[in-house]
Formats: sequence, structure tokens, C-alpha cells
Amino acid sequence: MPAARDHEVILRLTAASMNHRDLWIWKGQYAGIKFPIVPGSDGCGYIENQRCIINPGISWGDNPNFQSKHFKLVGLPEDGTFAEYVRIPKENLFAAATHLNDEEASTLGVAAITAFRSLFVRGQAKRSERLLICGIGGGVALFALQMALLTGCEVYVSSSKQGKVKQAIKLGAAGGVVYSEDSWDKNLLEMVPDGFDLIIDGFAGSNASKYLKLAKPGGRICFYGGTGGKMNDLSPQILFWKQLNILGSTMGSPLDFQNMVDFVNQHQLKPIIDAVYPLKDAEKAFIRLQQAEQFGKIVLKVA
Amino acid sequence: MPAARDHEVILRLTAASMNHRDLWIWKGQYAGIKFPIVPGSDGCGYIENQRCIINPGISWGDNPNFQSKHFKLVGLPEDGTFAEYVRIPKENLFAAATHLNDEEASTLGVAAITAFRSLFVRGQAKRSERLLICGIGGGVALFALQMALLTGCEVYVSSSKQGKVKQAIKLGAAGGVVYSEDSWDKNLLEMVPDGFDLIIDGFAGSNASKYLKLAKPGGRICFYGGTGGKMNDLSPQILFWKQLNILGSTMGSPLDFQNMVDFVNQHQLKPIIDAVYPLKDAEKAFIRLQQAEQFGKIVLKVA
Repeated sequence: MPAARDHEVILRLTAASMNHRDLWIWKGQYAGIKFPIVPGSDGCGYIENQRCIINPGISWGDNPNFQSKHFKLVGLPEDGTFAEYVRIPKENLFAAATHLNDEEASTLGVAAITAFRSLFVRGQAKRSERLLICGIGGGVALFALQMALLTGCEVYVSSSKQGKVKQAIKLGAAGGVVYSEDSWDKNLLEMVPDGFDLIIDGFAGSNASKYLKLAKPGGRICFYGGTGGKMNDLSPQILFWKQLNILGSTMGSPLDFQNMVDFVNQHQLKPIIDAVYPLKDAEKAFIRLQQAEQFGKIVLKVA
Repeated sequence: MPAARDHEVILRLTAASMNHRDLWIWKGQYAGIKFPIVPGSDGCGYIENQRCIINPGISWGDNPNFQSKHFKLVGLPEDGTFAEYVRIPKENLFAAATHLNDEEASTLGVAAITAFRSLFVRGQAKRSERLLICGIGGGVALFALQMALLTGCEVYVSSSKQGKVKQAIKLGAAGGVVYSEDSWDKNLLEMVPDGFDLIIDGFAGSNASKYLKLAKPGGRICFYGGTGGKMNDLSPQILFWKQLNILGSTMGSPLDFQNMVDFVNQHQLKPIIDAVYPLKDAEKAFIRLQQAEQFGKIVLKVA
């Protein structure tokens, strides 16, 4: 049982959702990792009778444009939410939305705030704009898809798997491509000859240079991750002539988190859950996450 | 003698300033070039007794964020300002600033509007911010330096030549580095450990990845050119974790041009002139531009 310090409370967890960050920690591959550590950034639980969710970003600081040097996530360096109890700063607790059960509410953490900031705060997505959301199936991409559709955007997707593209189209996406297609970028341009107002991506790597060609003049390309590694072969001529914007985004400020929660409530957004495992089967959940077969969030049921 | 069409006038030129674009046209290396062509985008001259300068961007269009597909510059595909007379749309003429002589006024074309939009419209430079302006000595970089200093920014510079860094410091730059130094980027970080709010660059190429490290969290990196070619080795992790903005900028809207002219008038900005040649010695002027020894604009005196 953790002990609360000043401005902290102890949350009794009922559900926790997983992120890739947890997988990297589990595999010992996260920068600055120190054992022992309880991973887990997202959670839903109770303080007495109050049902709460966690804003996993601690000490953002005063500047809405970027996080302070003291910024950290729940779940490293301090113990996280894959547990019965977690110690959390009071200000990081938000009321859980009444239209969501505990498992659904627990997913509104890292992925939802990352999607919200990338899409709206950094990407400035607006009704009727045409978007490309890459790597559909992952938590951030799916939240971005749902939020963009609820905003009235026309959304295309990309994925490594045909099945995930089909599932996204069922959810309301206008179309999509599979990376294994020889010229997925040209196929996208055939679907959308004018290009995209906004591209949301967490891969970067060899895909990044293609986004410059896929973007409309004045378009925005927002990266919230970089699992594909360094970006190469980017044409400055395309960048300046099309007046493009390449934007980095990570997590979100406390105000972003409040706005995300308000958006979810206002639109009665229902997070997409891939699977729920009991906490004791966390290893199975990690393996599911590692296999990258999921479409939606993987949740641990704590109690 | 060109003939004016609808909404056009004939400007009698007295001075014209050179840009790298003219050099590429002169060398036959410009995309879409068709001969014969009179190059030259910038100019000062007279319509009867009215002294005017030229906004070299024609048909920008309605969107302040990017130029229309019909956008073109004076001097290709239609004849330009290295001549006694040029045909110009009426709306592209602006009153010449009274504190400038014809040669000085003629420099307020491509370079000045490119600098103004990169610095203020795209780069959002503000008083007290710390800037890095790369490739000092060229027309855009020098206008950006002067405009940034007049705004109250602290400006550092880079150049291929030590002498140009020294000249920039005389103008008010806080410091600078020479690219031939082994670790010019690390030397800059020693001068400015917190990094730069805004970096203005027209080279890109192998320098681009270093700018990600030199930028402050939330910083902006604005490219108005790409003579260094493709950008490689850009870290998406630095981009998203520092919430950076990589922005492309070219030329400027008619409103940007008006605001640039107003800025020059309000601050009584005096453009820096490297050399003035009579029009008949244009070849010497082109050679001077090609040698990249200049510090300031190269001007042709027409009459």
C-alpha cells in the first residue's frame, strides 16, 4: 500500500489500460528505467465513492506549448497503475464519464490525450478537413479517428493489416491503404488527388518523406511518435513551396486533458476496447500488445 | 517596349536588385525555364512622377496560408526587371519608401518579403526571443537579421565565412559560428545552452538534423530554401518530445508585402547593399552573385 505525500491521494484501482510505453518498460527498453517498478499510466478507480480517471502527465508546468523539465508520466519513475492502489497528485484526478464503464474510462489516459493534442491543439483539425491517420488499430490512432469523425472530418487511414483498414472503414473512415501495397502513397493520392489537410502519425521513419507529397499546400503533418526511427530524404523544396508544417506533439497539458474529457463527454465517445484481462494475466496482455494484432485498447481489470 | 494588358501598367525602371533565382535562370538551371527571357524580380522605378517598388509575387490568391496554383514571380515566365521597362499588374506596385534611394528601394522584393514572412508570419518572432539566422550575408538572411534586431530579438548567425559573421556582429548580432568549425552546432549550444526559439534557414540538407537539437522546447525552425538538398537523419523523438515546429515558407501574400513595407517605413530600415553595377555590366553582377562573396544585395542601376 503506497503512502500519500503532500497534495497526493491514494486511488483504489478497478481498471488500467496499457500503452506501448508499458511494453517497452516490460522489455527493459525504456530510457532511464530503474527496477523494481510497477508499470501502468492509465487507470480508473475510486477515492471513497468518487469514480475517477487519471491524467497520467505529472508536472507539465506553466507553458501550454511544451512540458517542463520536471514532466513525468505515472508508471515510471514512480509506481503506476497495474496494481490495486496507486499514489497520484490530487490535481491529476478527473471525474470518470458516466456513459463509460470502468474498463472504458480507464483507457482515457496516454493514448486519448496524445490523440487529442495531436489532432486539435497541434494539428488544428477542423470540420470538413481531409485527414490521414496512420497506423490505425493502435490506441492513439483509433482515438484520433473517433475524435476526427465526431468533428466532421473526412478521414483516411493506413495500417500494416488489411483487416484493420476494413474495421476503420466500418467505424466511418472514408478509405485506407495497407503499407504492404507497393505504392501505398500513390494509391492514397489516387483516392485523394488534392492531398490531406492534416496527417497524424506515430511511425515517422521512411514514411515521413512521403507525407510531404501527400499533404495539401498549407497542410500539417503531426508526429506523436517515431517507432520507424529517423526521418530521411525530406525535400526542403516541397516543404517551403507548399508552406507545410511538420509538428511534434507529445501528451498534453492539464488544460488539454480537461478539454479531452469534455470532448468525450459532449460527444459520448465510446473508447474501442480490444481485450480485457484480469490483472493476474498481465503477461498475456503484454504479449497481445507485443503481437500488434489489437484493434483498440488492451485493459487490465484490477478488481 | 512591353505593352500593358488589362490591370497592368508599364514601369520605367531605375534600379533592379538580384536574387539567386536570377542566377539559376542565368545558368539555365531553373525549373520550367523558357528562352528568351529577361530575368529580374525586384525593381524600383517610375509611373509618370510616382516612385514605385514591385511586389514580385503575382496571383497569390485568397488564402493567407499558401499561394494559389497560378502564383508566379516577375521575371519568369514573363519578362522581368533587368530592363528599362517592365509590364506589371497595377496591384503589384507599392509606393517607394521616402528614406531610401532607388537602389535601396529596389532591394525590397523577393528577399525582403521572404525574410518578413519567414520571420514574423510563419516564425512568429517576438521581442526578447533568441534567434539563429543561418547563412548570413545572403539577402534573405540579412533582411531577417535587420528585422529581428529592430524587433528586439537576440540574434546569432552562421556563415561559411568568418568575415561575414564579424560583419553581422557589427550590425548587432550577439554572436555566430562558421560552418567550417568542426562542431559549429556544439559551439552554438555553448554560447546559448537553452537553445533557440526560432531558427531561420535557406540551406536545409545536412544542417537540418542539427537544428532539432539547437531548438528550444516549443521552438520553430523555418526553412525558406533548400540549397543544401534533402534533409536526413531527423529524429522524430526530438521533434515530438520538444514539441517542435518545422515550417516551410516561401515569398508572401499581398498583405504580407504591405506589412513588410510598413515595417520598413516604421523602422526606417536601410537595406544593406553589397555592390551596384550599371545594367550593361549585368554579367559582372551575376559573377559576383555566383562567387557568394557578397554581404548584402547586389543591385543593377538601370537609368
